[in-house]
Amino acid sequence: MSFSFRQLIERKRDGEVLRAEEIRWIIAEYTAGRLPDYQMAALLMAVFKEGLDGPELEVWTDAMLYSGEVLDLSHINAPKVDKHSTGGVGDKVSIPLAPMVAACGAAVPMMSGRGLGHTGGTVDKLESIPGFRTKLTPDEFVSVVEKTGLVLAGQSGSLAPADGAIYSLRDATGSVPSIPLIASSIMSKKLAVGLGALVLDVKVGRGAFMKDLDRARLLAETIVGIGKAQGTPVVAVLTDMNQPLGRMVGNATEIAESIEVLHGGGPPDLVEVVYRLGEEMLMLAGISSERADARRRLEQAVSSGAAFEKLQQVTVAQGGDPAVLLDPSLLPQAENEHIVRATKGGYVVRVDAFEIGTAALRLGAGRERKEDDIDPSVGIAVEAKTGDEVTAGQALARIFWNDGSRLADALPLTESAFEISEQRGSPLVYGEVR
Amino acid sequence: MSFSFRQLIERKRDGEVLRAEEIRWIIAEYTAGRLPDYQMAALLMAVFKEGLDGPELEVWTDAMLYSGEVLDLSHINAPKVDKHSTGGVGDKVSIPLAPMVAACGAAVPMMSGRGLGHTGGTVDKLESIPGFRTKLTPDEFVSVVEKTGLVLAGQSGSLAPADGAIYSLRDATGSVPSIPLIASSIMSKKLAVGLGALVLDVKVGRGAFMKDLDRARLLAETIVGIGKAQGTPVVAVLTDMNQPLGRMVGNATEIAESIEVLHGGGPPDLVEVVYRLGEEMLMLAGISSERADARRRLEQAVSSGAAFEKLQQVTVAQGGDPAVLLDPSLLPQAENEHIVRATKGGYVVRVDAFEIGTAALRLGAGRERKEDDIDPSVGIAVEAKTGDEVTAGQALARIFWNDGSRLADALPLTESAFEISEQRGSPLVYGEVR
Repeated sequence: MSFSFRQLIERKRDGEVLRAEEIRWIIAEYTAGRLPDYQMAALLMAVFKEGLDGPELEVWTDAMLYSGEVLDLSHINAPKVDKHSTGGVGDKVSIPLAPMVAACGAAVPMMSGRGLGHTGGTVDKLESIPGFRTKLTPDEFVSVVEKTGLVLAGQSGSLAPADGAIYSLRDATGSVPSIPLIASSIMSKKLAVGLGALVLDVKVGRGAFMKDLDRARLLAETIVGIGKAQGTPVVAVLTDMNQPLGRMVGNATEIAESIEVLHGGGPPDLVEVVYRLGEEMLMLAGISSERADARRRLEQAVSSGAAFEKLQQVTVAQGGDPAVLLDPSLLPQAENEHIVRATKGGYVVRVDAFEIGTAALRLGAGRERKEDDIDPSVGIAVEAKTGDEVTAGQALARIFWNDGSRLADALPLTESAFEISEQRGSPLVYGEVR
Repeated sequence: MSFSFRQLIERKRDGEVLRAEEIRWIIAEYTAGRLPDYQMAALLMAVFKEGLDGPELEVWTDAMLYSGEVLDLSHINAPKVDKHSTGGVGDKVSIPLAPMVAACGAAVPMMSGRGLGHTGGTVDKLESIPGFRTKLTPDEFVSVVEKTGLVLAGQSGSLAPADGAIYSLRDATGSVPSIPLIASSIMSKKLAVGLGALVLDVKVGRGAFMKDLDRARLLAETIVGIGKAQGTPVVAVLTDMNQPLGRMVGNATEIAESIEVLHGGGPPDLVEVVYRLGEEMLMLAGISSERADARRRLEQAVSSGAAFEKLQQVTVAQGGDPAVLLDPSLLPQAENEHIVRATKGGYVVRVDAFEIGTAALRLGAGRERKEDDIDPSVGIAVEAKTGDEVTAGQALARIFWNDGSRLADALPLTESAFEISEQRGSPLVYGEVR
């Protein structure tokens, strides 16, 4: 079957609905390199403007999902459940969460992204563990899940290759913030891993890609709808990303903080999100039928040391040095520390996640361009959170730095991220969509 | 100065106004081949959706105009005035009009297009005159105007090259029918010729690119606005293109019909449009201060033979054989003729210009693809027009054909173009915009 791509662009431009065979043709031909980027860019802008309706989006996602290899985990005799975050600042949730859930008996085949702009990436954080390999072949990916019950890998080009190609084009041509395109991108990659259920953490606020609750809720509903069409249960939880999650923003420092959580410690906001998402995962996996039971199992996995042991197992299975997990002071450390102090007393009313994330990026914790290297040791410790009462001169943040000119870029952003006044913060969890 | 093209795309996508230096940068960099087609395609789709406001459009047009050579006709001691049509079926107006206006003392530096889809092109028609060269260098173009007072050339790649590049991309990516993009395309090419004033014939109806009067009026107003900003007076006349203009649709046959007009004959609808546009041109050129005077001058140019002589002069100057003008039966002739007859008596209420134009295209009078050759001899004579009373069996059209399979394609379109009932046609001239 063949179509005039120009006519399909014109129809979408005019708000018409494309038919299933037309969408499948576009995705297949574009992935095969037989449609030019300039026509695809025009179509994506038309989709940005006109959207995709429910049936269009189901087919679009399905075509991207089957544009490459789809893993088969059916031989693994455990419920498969994964978690995906839309991205934030200080969001190291996956690192303690996946071992905790795996320790409770679920299989967690997790494929994560790298940092993007001001947001961090699980893969970058894991790579601050010496030797930890996140680039796995599909066979290695399956074999690590078989062996340890979880895997923490980067995205593979052989899964949903259409998404990789389309994402790069969207990034260059201004069609990234489109809800159907975001939803299909996430779901095609996640479903290609062969999972049974998914918990989605939709971050909302200053440090998230979704700045407002209405759009975040729409994205959540859209993804839940795709899951339903694919027969994969999805629960989306909307959580706050106005301020960084937890205390640490960086890479090695976030690994250290993740280990704290697995030892029963860690900052309360991070712990709350980890347990909330873990409860949803265990319920979706059918391991718990109610929240309180799930909570008990997760607490037990931590207090028994089983969850920490899972992280050690997966680290070894992926080539990482388990010694740094036992002694996090062996992780890469920045040479210098600069303390940002409160210039007056009062309540902290804003710790701007976008500014803190951008400051960490400037320090070298993230990438300005895709090809940049990151510095795993640098980062920022947020010492006061929204709602905290502080006195003048008290530490608001510690900046871990190696390069003076980078510190000079990061410092004013860190300082201006904090606002001190007389009222308290915003809620951490906004709601959920099933 | 340098910008992030992605950010400019995003701003236009979100309905923001681009600044002058940003638009100039986009047009200059794209013309120089330093911006990728895929980003330009996304921007053009965003412009299609969000439009360009008055100041944006002025700069966009100006940047395209100065993207290449701009001719200088200031040494020619006569008012320079041109006519442009948005394109239709049977629209041979330029061929009698330019010599008539030149014979009245104006200089007419006319650069015309080729046929596009179901519409014919002045350049294709002129090329049915043996030897007639429409590809002129800028120097030849100026020299023909100097010598004869007019020139009838095809578009030169050295004038407004940005328009050529952007037009091809729009054609492939579904952003052709955008009023600001159409207006800037027309005006950048026209202004690059160095003219003093322009009469625009905006065709409206089934056989035109503007199907409805409101959009046609908006295009007319938009172009008049660009002319004002550039200090070039423009009058736009909106004329009917629901049925073909005149009797002949094709190439050589339209040259023959044009010669009839220069001899004082020709179909009344064609004659009316030619004189109406000629009046506007003479008034804009300052040769006549009122319509009646302009009309008398045009009639005098025809009855004296001066206008026909101008066509002979320009034909010789551009390498064409003047013998065919004196004896149009020497023009290329199709081998066969097929007559389409009325199946019942009544009034003709529709002669669909789109269907007749498409039928002529199928016969070989136009191009399915840019690289196709055209057959100058084939075409259709429309023997009954909207409002005519016909009897059963009377000829509605004559099809001049060479290839039987092409005739088989063209015949049903020609037949279905005619509708016979009990009421009369639509007005020929809808109005004007100054």
